[in-house]
Amino acid sequence: MVNPVESNPTSIQEIIAAAKAASFKLGAMSNHDRVQALQAMASALTAEKEGILAANQKDLDAAKIALTNGEIDQAAYKRLVLNEEKLQTVIDGINQVSQLESPVGKVLLKRELDDGLILSQITCPIGLIAIIFESRPDALPQIIALCLKSGNAAILKGGNEAQATNGAIFSAIQNSLSKSGISQDTYALSHNREVVPAMLSADGQIDLIIPRGSNELVRHIIDNTRIPVLGHAAGICHVYVDEKANIQKALDISIDAKTNYPAACNAAETILVHKSIAAQFLPKLLKAMVNENVQCRCDQSVQDLISLSDYKTSIAATNDDFGCEFSALVVAIKVVETIDQAIAHINQFGSNHTETIVTESDTAATKFFDEINSAGVFQNASTRFADGFRYGFGAEVGISNGKLHPRGPVGIEGLVSYKYKLVGDGHIVASYSEKNGRKFKHIDLEK
Amino acid sequence: MVNPVESNPTSIQEIIAAAKAASFKLGAMSNHDRVQALQAMASALTAEKEGILAANQKDLDAAKIALTNGEIDQAAYKRLVLNEEKLQTVIDGINQVSQLESPVGKVLLKRELDDGLILSQITCPIGLIAIIFESRPDALPQIIALCLKSGNAAILKGGNEAQATNGAIFSAIQNSLSKSGISQDTYALSHNREVVPAMLSADGQIDLIIPRGSNELVRHIIDNTRIPVLGHAAGICHVYVDEKANIQKALDISIDAKTNYPAACNAAETILVHKSIAAQFLPKLLKAMVNENVQCRCDQSVQDLISLSDYKTSIAATNDDFGCEFSALVVAIKVVETIDQAIAHINQFGSNHTETIVTESDTAATKFFDEINSAGVFQNASTRFADGFRYGFGAEVGISNGKLHPRGPVGIEGLVSYKYKLVGDGHIVASYSEKNGRKFKHIDLEK
Repeated sequence: MVNPVESNPTSIQEIIAAAKAASFKLGAMSNHDRVQALQAMASALTAEKEGILAANQKDLDAAKIALTNGEIDQAAYKRLVLNEEKLQTVIDGINQVSQLESPVGKVLLKRELDDGLILSQITCPIGLIAIIFESRPDALPQIIALCLKSGNAAILKGGNEAQATNGAIFSAIQNSLSKSGISQDTYALSHNREVVPAMLSADGQIDLIIPRGSNELVRHIIDNTRIPVLGHAAGICHVYVDEKANIQKALDISIDAKTNYPAACNAAETILVHKSIAAQFLPKLLKAMVNENVQCRCDQSVQDLISLSDYKTSIAATNDDFGCEFSALVVAIKVVETIDQAIAHINQFGSNHTETIVTESDTAATKFFDEINSAGVFQNASTRFADGFRYGFGAEVGISNGKLHPRGPVGIEGLVSYKYKLVGDGHIVASYSEKNGRKFKHIDLEK
Repeated sequence: MVNPVESNPTSIQEIIAAAKAASFKLGAMSNHDRVQALQAMASALTAEKEGILAANQKDLDAAKIALTNGEIDQAAYKRLVLNEEKLQTVIDGINQVSQLESPVGKVLLKRELDDGLILSQITCPIGLIAIIFESRPDALPQIIALCLKSGNAAILKGGNEAQATNGAIFSAIQNSLSKSGISQDTYALSHNREVVPAMLSADGQIDLIIPRGSNELVRHIIDNTRIPVLGHAAGICHVYVDEKANIQKALDISIDAKTNYPAACNAAETILVHKSIAAQFLPKLLKAMVNENVQCRCDQSVQDLISLSDYKTSIAATNDDFGCEFSALVVAIKVVETIDQAIAHINQFGSNHTETIVTESDTAATKFFDEINSAGVFQNASTRFADGFRYGFGAEVGISNGKLHPRGPVGIEGLVSYKYKLVGDGHIVASYSEKNGRKFKHIDLEK
């Protein structure tokens, strides 16, 4: 572990325990002090730029050999690259996060239960978060900044390929944090795969796990821990082109949702088309998709209206194509009889991520919104907008497909929980127990 | 299953799937219609009072035999009793819940991302909830009322001992719901233990499991499902008597927290006493506890100050007594050197439920509140106030020890999640991608 330690923890269990203890102190730190620490962190990264980029070159040299040997692909190599511009963006991001309103200490509810007995519901940090992330070295400082702003400690497991870069970044951050009076136990970094099982079994210590990586990684983690997991094993997003759709908007949104970044979790995988608009829309859609080198996998309901042979690379869909995350230039297309059938299809095959309806009818849009419980339900906008930066969260630690909080793109607001504060003056429950006892007032007060 | 079916589901898997489908329709129902349905439910229970009490008599007759045979204890028998007064309280409770502000459809955030592109974060039902509950038959209508108000469908597994009572109540409710236009698939009830494994493995269908029963039941469920579980396997609450405590308040609160209802999860299990007040406070505390027939298990730090033989039934504590949920008239007592030591003890041995500090010092209270992340952190009030009714939530489906939402006593506000609504006019992400592309505005609007 790259962790110039205070309490000298050596095993991963000791490191987790030390980070847990540090989390309580960090949670009690004022926003003012957290802002100062974030600014110091940004300055430290600026000062250490050269060393960080040199370390990145080391990782890239090793990766180049792996690339030549076919052990990694071009995309993985690209993810590893950290140039001066990218690093500056990260530093700017930290300064931006520091300026966001503090998510900690917000009063959500204030209620007078009885004379002199005041209940408040107040946001607080979650505690200790474990983050298992991929090779992108810009993720590390971003994640630590979001955790620090929200008062959370973190145990980080980085990708081995980025070990030198992560190490240089982490060491600069730790130096600046200790100058800001934050215990070095608060954040710990490892590149050793063997720490993962210990993290997964640390329920009671680790409060939340955030896996950032392949669907297989996320599935493995969900299946092997009792700790809540923030993430999504699949992003199966839908575009529904309603009978009242504007054809041009439907085309623009379908193409953007599929082709803007096909590997992203918020890319569309299935397009559903209302039958009353299908004859007019489908030829245009398939032509546009083919132009963008997208393979269309068409249900029989589509083949009934158009001839696939007119659209090269288009093929008949199998049942497995619906509910499949292609993460590539492939899309499944189906005609539906009614909006109800579209909604039922999405609720059956979707993954609660993001769905969009293209329609000029507010009635249809309202029905779509009310009957679909995905984290994002859009009208006349691309599914690709489902993203922390685009939502204005400053940054995101991930996107959650879960039904409970935190849900959707998760920024600092998603990294806090709440606790109930009750202040009395010696109040006891026995006074309220008997038939002739005191009655509660339950008057909501101004927060 | 007592489920006069619409879609004719027969297996538990089919019943779950039908309830899931019904949940989307219920979630889209207006608050006005849900209020009407709740009032109809209350009226139906009033109309069927006689039949319900007769059914309860049947369960009680069987329980009396079990009691004689030593198969159940007096407390279990008592829990089963439903008299006219109790039933009336339940009916009044349903009418009260119907009048609460709707937790669904609240706008938490409204933001202009760009011209004509508006993001809203809006509360929505969680979806389909599974509830495994104990023999108290008053729990059934209460749980259904909370689920209906918050727009959630539910699969309920009741205690076998209450089968006749639950059946009569459920049948009255189902009749009234179908008259209110709510699908009979929305709620299903079973008393068959064999449905539990199917419920636990229904991830993707069931969104939340609420076990109401013994710690063993809760632990079993947490260990055997990937579905989020709302509950607590242990309620280990602490009273910390600070050096600046008012002695009388400390006595009143300690006695109330321990003796008001020792089997409750919000009863205190451990009392920590600051050393500078210990010599004065401990003799009074032990005397009062002994008067209430409480066995005091005292740490060596307590024995150093008082002689246990002066307080009959008081004994030396073992290490296992700290962090133990006695659920009985037993309490562990320890002297701490500092408030930091008290906080560290609670963070180590507590279960994130509820802790209280008795102090007249706001500095000490603030420190206690900031550094302890239990769902309830109190000052000068009994831990027994941690309860949905007392917090003014109308009722509660349970208390959650988890760090994430829903947390603490969970009423209707805890039974909703949120989704992000994005309304555009054909907006695509590609417009924002290029260097010279559009910039987001991110202007927060009035909700």
